[in-house]
Amino acid sequence: MIKVLLNGCGGKMGKVVIESAKKFNAVEIVAGIDKFADKSIEFPVFKSIKDCNVSVDVIVDFSRPDALYSILDFSDKNKTPVVLCTTGYSDDQIAKINNFSKEHAIFRSANMSIGINVINNILKNISAFLYEDYDIEIIEKHHNQKVDAPSGTALLLGDTIKDAIKENTVYINGREGIHKREHNEIGVHAIRGGSIVGEHEIIFAGQGETIELKHTAISREVFAVGALKASLFMANKSKGLYNMNDVLNAK
Amino acid sequence: MIKVLLNGCGGKMGKVVIESAKKFNAVEIVAGIDKFADKSIEFPVFKSIKDCNVSVDVIVDFSRPDALYSILDFSDKNKTPVVLCTTGYSDDQIAKINNFSKEHAIFRSANMSIGINVINNILKNISAFLYEDYDIEIIEKHHNQKVDAPSGTALLLGDTIKDAIKENTVYINGREGIHKREHNEIGVHAIRGGSIVGEHEIIFAGQGETIELKHTAISREVFAVGALKASLFMANKSKGLYNMNDVLNAK
Amino acid sequence: MIKVLLNGCGGKMGKVVIESAKKFNAVEIVAGIDKFADKSIEFPVFKSIKDCNVSVDVIVDFSRPDALYSILDFSDKNKTPVVLCTTGYSDDQIAKINNFSKEHAIFRSANMSIGINVINNILKNISAFLYEDYDIEIIEKHHNQKVDAPSGTALLLGDTIKDAIKENTVYINGREGIHKREHNEIGVHAIRGGSIVGEHEIIFAGQGETIELKHTAISREVFAVGALKASLFMANKSKGLYNMNDVLNAK
Amino acid sequence: MIKVLLNGCGGKMGKVVIESAKKFNAVEIVAGIDKFADKSIEFPVFKSIKDCNVSVDVIVDFSRPDALYSILDFSDKNKTPVVLCTTGYSDDQIAKINNFSKEHAIFRSANMSIGINVINNILKNISAFLYEDYDIEIIEKHHNQKVDAPSGTALLLGDTIKDAIKENTVYINGREGIHKREHNEIGVHAIRGGSIVGEHEIIFAGQGETIELKHTAISREVFAVGALKASLFMANKSKGLYNMNDVLNAK
Repeated sequence: MIKVLLNGCGGKMGKVVIESAKKFNAVEIVAGIDKFADKSIEFPVFKSIKDCNVSVDVIVDFSRPDALYSILDFSDKNKTPVVLCTTGYSDDQIAKINNFSKEHAIFRSANMSIGINVINNILKNISAFLYEDYDIEIIEKHHNQKVDAPSGTALLLGDTIKDAIKENTVYINGREGIHKREHNEIGVHAIRGGSIVGEHEIIFAGQGETIELKHTAISREVFAVGALKASLFMANKSKGLYNMNDVLNAK
Repeated sequence: MIKVLLNGCGGKMGKVVIESAKKFNAVEIVAGIDKFADKSIEFPVFKSIKDCNVSVDVIVDFSRPDALYSILDFSDKNKTPVVLCTTGYSDDQIAKINNFSKEHAIFRSANMSIGINVINNILKNISAFLYEDYDIEIIEKHHNQKVDAPSGTALLLGDTIKDAIKENTVYINGREGIHKREHNEIGVHAIRGGSIVGEHEIIFAGQGETIELKHTAISREVFAVGALKASLFMANKSKGLYNMNDVLNAK
Repeated sequence: MIKVLLNGCGGKMGKVVIESAKKFNAVEIVAGIDKFADKSIEFPVFKSIKDCNVSVDVIVDFSRPDALYSILDFSDKNKTPVVLCTTGYSDDQIAKINNFSKEHAIFRSANMSIGINVINNILKNISAFLYEDYDIEIIEKHHNQKVDAPSGTALLLGDTIKDAIKENTVYINGREGIHKREHNEIGVHAIRGGSIVGEHEIIFAGQGETIELKHTAISREVFAVGALKASLFMANKSKGLYNMNDVLNAK
Repeated sequence: MIKVLLNGCGGKMGKVVIESAKKFNAVEIVAGIDKFADKSIEFPVFKSIKDCNVSVDVIVDFSRPDALYSILDFSDKNKTPVVLCTTGYSDDQIAKINNFSKEHAIFRSANMSIGINVINNILKNISAFLYEDYDIEIIEKHHNQKVDAPSGTALLLGDTIKDAIKENTVYINGREGIHKREHNEIGVHAIRGGSIVGEHEIIFAGQGETIELKHTAISREVFAVGALKASLFMANKSKGLYNMNDVLNAK
């Protein structure tokens, strides 16, 4: 059983991770860090990571970018691998993470969902081959409060497709008017409405057939599951920078 | 059994109508008009509608706009209702059709598909009510040779939605950049690829749920079936201008 | 602003209703009933409905069937309309509700989702007409913990279709072996997996086209929104038994 | 330019292959075999393959199983690779094909669609890994004249999944009644209706997310394109038994 220290255990994602861990046999959360933690939490919660005296196998972080420094200190002192699930790091912070990985084990991924990473890997394998005869379009759907279009994940998947294809392809964000589709267009369509959690669909449309790959996020649980799987993977690592793809390939 | 004269029986759509009519008990094609008809056709084919001496209940036209005049002459002389399935009429021709309908029975519809008309009717009923709490988005998919975006049918459906809603709504053809969705946007997304025949989907996205209406055209047969149903409906009409909606409402 | 008394405010659904009401301008929760309510709740919470001395316009119940009696007592004494969102009533309890409605205003619905009720109404209108030429199939998807198949909602929608069609139709729950589809079959397919919240899709498959109606539940919020809309509708009613369909038709 | 001899050029699939070849730069049909060929065909058509005196690079067969013997004779005499696209061979005929492949180049595939083979390959790679945490369900849709359920292609894909998973899994063809899903079930759902050409969808449903792979056949053209790609691949082979997977892997 892998013992996890959960930094940010009192936040929205922290609560989801606690719930998900209960269903996850191989990982147990044994301590948490949060200034404002709920009293119903069943493991010891410390206000600062410096105060934590519980022995753990992995630190999982769902807090804020500026918590990075205290986490790396704790990791360095206790030789504990780190799983970073926070986004929005500055360039300096990313450089610090990369440098830290030379002597320590640390995990950071553009997307914590297993499913998105599985689809991203499939796209690496099939895009160049299919591009010869299939037109490629991406549809993503999100709730009406999301301000950026297309989504970061749509661009992650799209860039994987573009990188796999030798010819120069271009994104087209929606279509209007009289214009015949060029083969090197990759249509990207951002649907926004209601409280849709997140859907990403890649369409390969050929002569007489279509192939579609679709990912649907149902709830935040998807990120918790990814974090727990990453913890399991990182528990025995001593150094290096890892991401979700390494977790998938280890299987 | 309704007896049909098929104008344009040698063209692509003509052939599809002939095949569809074989499965359609209530309608029989008893004669055709085409300059270059296949010899395998089992009913008499005339090079010009003037030569046709077969008694018929309805004329169905799948040819070209300029065939209009000879068709109306035939209809006037024989008191035969007309089902026009040709598109691209000029304003003059449309005026002529409207005028003709004062004394004769004539059918013309923006879309010959039963399914699109059913969905269009549903949209008339539900759009105003749902708009209060749901965001509305339209996705349409067609083959990579289609030059216009969005499709005429997407605009037909979208205009029905807009007409039903009192507030002023605006079409948004794709999204890119930083922009929070306004409630009065109707997103319209034109996917193009391979040999997709035609799909139209309307999404009502609300708090905690989505409602989707989707039409998929599988083949040209859908227009043939619409024409045959229109023929059945028109057979006993003496005057007036009808469209596919009248066919649906007659049920 | 309609003032609501929320019975069961401390339960899972109670919490969702409280969150949803914050976004809902026309309705305010002014008091709650729950034995074990969270201290963070911002309105007064009473352990028993008998203790409630707050003036309200509507009682909304998300608790258990046996809370029925005390709710009806409160409603009778204060002339307050009731919105029942609890399921699993006994025949005796349903008889009591029906009888109560002769002198009081009470709401009870087989499904609290607006979307499912909208689709159900559409099915009432189009099923008989489409059945002439279209085959009808139902697909529903739910999480892997759901024990009953097909879902109650799939049967609600299916029964609406069956009632609309004059011919005798039969449900087919999955297909295996050599068997040509009879037109009067209604295929019902129960997909189970992961944590899917709930999807219901009705397919009308015709010659050359398909029409699909699909409902997706994203979260429990869908039931909260339904309850709040029902409250708004019920606030000025003096007697009668109402359901979600009445709420839709009032628009 | 690869020169193809098309056996069965007058049949339904033969006509589709002729049309598809016109759009396919690398392959040209230079001769055909058919007893009842249309006079509009632009290349020489022979009533028997024995009469064919045209030099070709590959023989493509879309006829009947019993044409096998004369095709193998022609192949043996002219050292011409064979692409068999006919189904329904007897065990004896399959043994003959296998034996023939020891000294000659011959192609035979369970499914001629590129897309189905791409998806089948993806399933080989991901099924074992995803099975640990995801439930697997298969939905296939076909027209109302199809008598077998589930489809051969659904079983091809399902068997690939089963072979990839070490644990013993079982097919469940539809669900009815009270029964909690076992993880080792693979639900298979056969939808039948109208003139749906053919859809196959594999759902991996996990905690908080789903991954879906979907193939849609739009028309028979999909099999023609597969045959032409196989021809291109086989043109320079001297011996061995090949299938569509070899065509994909050659890319």
